[in-house]
Amino acid sequence: MTRTYPAVMSAAYAPPLRDIRFVLEHLVDLSGLSKLEPFRHADPDTVQGALEEFGRLMAEVWAPTNQIGDVEGSQLVDGGVRTPAVFKPAYRQYVDAGWPAVAFAPEYGGGGFPWLVGAVLQEMLNSANMALAMAPMLTHGAIDALALHGSEAQREVYLRRMVSGEWTGTMNLTEPEAGSDVGALRTRAVPQPDGTFRITGQKIFITFGDHDLTANVVHLVLARTPGAPPGTKGISCFIVPKFLVEPDGTLGARNDVEVVSLEHKLGIKASPTCVLAFGDGGEGAVGELIGEEHAGMRYMFTMMNNARLGVGIQALGLAERAYQAAIAYARERRQGRAPGAPAGHTSPIVEHPDVRRNLLTMKATTEAMRAMCLLQAEQIDLARHLPDGTARTAARELADLLTPMTKSWCTDMAETVTSIGVQVHGGMGYIEETGVAQHYRDAKITQIYEGTNGIQAQDLIGRKVPVRGGAVVAELAARMRATVEELSGAGEPLAGVHRELGLALDTLDAATAWLMERGLADPVEALGAATPYQRLFATTVAGWLMARAALAARRLQASGGGDLGAEFADAKLVTARFFVEQLLPSVHGLLAAVRAGAADLMALTPGQLALR
Amino acid sequence: MTRTYPAVMSAAYAPPLRDIRFVLEHLVDLSGLSKLEPFRHADPDTVQGALEEFGRLMAEVWAPTNQIGDVEGSQLVDGGVRTPAVFKPAYRQYVDAGWPAVAFAPEYGGGGFPWLVGAVLQEMLNSANMALAMAPMLTHGAIDALALHGSEAQREVYLRRMVSGEWTGTMNLTEPEAGSDVGALRTRAVPQPDGTFRITGQKIFITFGDHDLTANVVHLVLARTPGAPPGTKGISCFIVPKFLVEPDGTLGARNDVEVVSLEHKLGIKASPTCVLAFGDGGEGAVGELIGEEHAGMRYMFTMMNNARLGVGIQALGLAERAYQAAIAYARERRQGRAPGAPAGHTSPIVEHPDVRRNLLTMKATTEAMRAMCLLQAEQIDLARHLPDGTARTAARELADLLTPMTKSWCTDMAETVTSIGVQVHGGMGYIEETGVAQHYRDAKITQIYEGTNGIQAQDLIGRKVPVRGGAVVAELAARMRATVEELSGAGEPLAGVHRELGLALDTLDAATAWLMERGLADPVEALGAATPYQRLFATTVAGWLMARAALAARRLQASGGGDLGAEFADAKLVTARFFVEQLLPSVHGLLAAVRAGAADLMALTPGQLALR
Repeated sequence: MTRTYPAVMSAAYAPPLRDIRFVLEHLVDLSGLSKLEPFRHADPDTVQGALEEFGRLMAEVWAPTNQIGDVEGSQLVDGGVRTPAVFKPAYRQYVDAGWPAVAFAPEYGGGGFPWLVGAVLQEMLNSANMALAMAPMLTHGAIDALALHGSEAQREVYLRRMVSGEWTGTMNLTEPEAGSDVGALRTRAVPQPDGTFRITGQKIFITFGDHDLTANVVHLVLARTPGAPPGTKGISCFIVPKFLVEPDGTLGARNDVEVVSLEHKLGIKASPTCVLAFGDGGEGAVGELIGEEHAGMRYMFTMMNNARLGVGIQALGLAERAYQAAIAYARERRQGRAPGAPAGHTSPIVEHPDVRRNLLTMKATTEAMRAMCLLQAEQIDLARHLPDGTARTAARELADLLTPMTKSWCTDMAETVTSIGVQVHGGMGYIEETGVAQHYRDAKITQIYEGTNGIQAQDLIGRKVPVRGGAVVAELAARMRATVEELSGAGEPLAGVHRELGLALDTLDAATAWLMERGLADPVEALGAATPYQRLFATTVAGWLMARAALAARRLQASGGGDLGAEFADAKLVTARFFVEQLLPSVHGLLAAVRAGAADLMALTPGQLALR
Repeated sequence: MTRTYPAVMSAAYAPPLRDIRFVLEHLVDLSGLSKLEPFRHADPDTVQGALEEFGRLMAEVWAPTNQIGDVEGSQLVDGGVRTPAVFKPAYRQYVDAGWPAVAFAPEYGGGGFPWLVGAVLQEMLNSANMALAMAPMLTHGAIDALALHGSEAQREVYLRRMVSGEWTGTMNLTEPEAGSDVGALRTRAVPQPDGTFRITGQKIFITFGDHDLTANVVHLVLARTPGAPPGTKGISCFIVPKFLVEPDGTLGARNDVEVVSLEHKLGIKASPTCVLAFGDGGEGAVGELIGEEHAGMRYMFTMMNNARLGVGIQALGLAERAYQAAIAYARERRQGRAPGAPAGHTSPIVEHPDVRRNLLTMKATTEAMRAMCLLQAEQIDLARHLPDGTARTAARELADLLTPMTKSWCTDMAETVTSIGVQVHGGMGYIEETGVAQHYRDAKITQIYEGTNGIQAQDLIGRKVPVRGGAVVAELAARMRATVEELSGAGEPLAGVHRELGLALDTLDAATAWLMERGLADPVEALGAATPYQRLFATTVAGWLMARAALAARRLQASGGGDLGAEFADAKLVTARFFVEQLLPSVHGLLAAVRAGAADLMALTPGQLALR
């Protein structure tokens, strides 16, 4: 006898093109962006066409590889990483169609589209297969570093091939004793007479540190030169390719970079997380300095907004896929009788009010995540390309302020959304074959890497809120107040949205005032309040974006829904209102923790904490 | 070259005997319980001695098997389940020392200790090895069913051997189309001339449905007899042993129960979750009816408080172990410089305020979980054994009211606590060898089985809150208000506790009033509000228990800490105050969702929900 229920039920993925379009048109301004000189070819119609085409590739080619990759995992075979067999053709199609280059600058083969569009592509990549998407994601970091700080020769040789996806890149920061504290790293780089360096040391947590998808892998490695100052001030950044490269780009000898082992991880099992040894076989791996000596940490910071946004987008991608699986299952699965259903009827669980709450929580949260990620992406584009310097600075400051919130809030919400996704599936959700436990496992890493969410909170209160004496925060608060004002004349359907956004802003103001007065005077108080403050602030920003979504949905309704359709406009109004009226008020439960002070946090000795 | 950091760091487990003792003496009344006739031998000193001895077994023998079991998993070999090799000796020691019987009634070999003590043992079992602890846990359900409803002969043959742990028991409820909706089950039971029944059907999610730890496995199976009414009213309960049993207890022929497959699960991988086929080889498996025909569902309900409390205790056990791992790691791991540390110093991360917040959140939440679980266990004992009938009823009503809250709140909190536990370990937490990802994976099932937490919320608002027109809720609220009163004279160190508990009770009152007025008139409104109401109510109960803990800690401090010591008393005061001042206020963020009404929940069509 065989089991009578299906062993594999992993749901299909449909690119959320309607909601993406809604955000691009109504919450950020793609149309405005495409009027800037470098983006004139990226008009909304062209973008829409590209997104549809890319969405097809993701849905048809990448998405079916996600669960297969998780089961097979990446393996260390004869000293090299073998990725799941389905990965190579999927990656190849993505490269052959030119997609990796879309949002990079044209000088080195990029498509010159705004990063706003790149962010949308990244969402779909991560929904389709987060583990595989980490190859281009990490390459993006290496591309940014070389584009900003590499020599002309380095750009011609390396950058061009990473932009095209012909080679991938890695970021080698972490060492066993240097995780959150990057400045503690010990890898050494010794200059050679020919201008190269010899690199020796061990790096851990190197994503796609080796693989079989491309002919070469370009490692960017942080290391110390002889006599470098201690801490972050003495770090330099090097290119260390897996295969040495001739000036014409042909591959030479194998460099001395060895994969020591792969990690067994909770999730993203198909993404090879390597321990890499540099120079273990002799005098050191051959490396080239990028930019100036001792400037490595500064270079890393210039990439941080993009990289952290990238992690927020991973979280968004997972949440979207988890939601799609949950709503599909809830429409199919029948259990019990919903209120109002005829006697004897077994209802699809989507009809049960509590399941509805789960689904709307997932949907509303995912859509708020999308709005937040794309707002930050837009600000990154504006900060680079607006003609006016003051406006560029304002965009840069807003992007900086949003960075820790996007990273931490979206990733915390991905945990919540994927957890609810498992919950909607009941016992079946706990079975790996169903596929939704994978989303939950994959999501957990996003709260940790690229700076744990605790590190984000410290960044927010230590480096972002204090900018210009709090003026950046005040300017954002004023923008959000303006939305409250706009809502005051928006009529009965938005009365609750008007009320709740106003109340949330009052609570944010109170929290910020406490932080500016007391917290910033005493670092312990500020650091102790950092996490609840970050959650409170980010939830308010999400609520503000959803309040604006509600306003836009009302406008759409008035015009019959426009291209997005009346059904969509109605759904968006309800979803946005649900977020503002029912999820945003969680901020009021956080204020007490912000203002409690750090005395109790620090009152106990470590021994007392361990006393059981 | 080999990796330079340890591959396995799984932390040891130390039984939290101090905190358990604190709860038994100060938040519930073990001493009072031991004055009841059946519990006279369970005086606090005897109990303390037993807990110490049991704690040693768990720490030394069971705890080291947890991660090994997870890696090895249970396997299906030649049609039978092979548990991890380390399990059999661990289980054997537990049985040989007589531990399984401790909290069962003496008539069939039990030790006659209160369930309050049984709950404490269960916590330690689950901290040490949740997967293995599921064997006795499911047996407990079968024991309750036979003790309450079995015939004398069934008790002599089966119950006695399950009480001792010589055999284990299972609960066979779920079928592919009958999960949360048990009444939909289809397994058939046909009466035979000799008084037995022939059972045919397939059951899924059967925990320890087969294994190699004991000579026999006693399945309790829900099935329909010919002509039985549809739904839950037509369900009967049967004993179906793996091996048939002679009246003298010796084992006879193999019964027709086959393991079809094992599930690949997110967690509790060493606990075999079986698909079982009954009667697939011929005319049906041989079963004996328990009690009366068609009364099976009622019997299940009588076991529910215990079983759901059992899941809450699993969550508690995982949270405690996760906390111990986190505090141990945080004292060892050095990263960055904490505020106030000398320049150039690298601080243990326990000194960073944000890590402190993580640790105190874990500690305070775990201790609140323990208080809630043991309060419910005490009420179960009182409901059975108080001499006065009215007092028994009051205890039963409180146990009933607490059941969904203990189950849902503790399991939701286990997700939070184990998630923070991973977070404290940073990137290392995501590596399976560290052992803390296992806690996170294991915890997820507790939110799902034994009634999903959504089902618990429906039970709370549909069957518990309405009892006596809300009087049970009102009586509990009055007890909680009395604590506020007590706090009003407790001085400055408890001023915040006094304030926050009062505010939380105001919020609970407002939520309950809404539910009683509007929600109970309209089932959709009530069902829609169920989950946020449950969280709000349970968090308030947890806050009340921690406020009482703060009062008790103050009294302990006044006497130098008593046997628990001044260090413990100080730590408890800070931990309890942290919970009430910083975590309890989350209730204020839930009220809006309770009172929002269900209109938006139900406004969209399933198709609109799926529109992306």
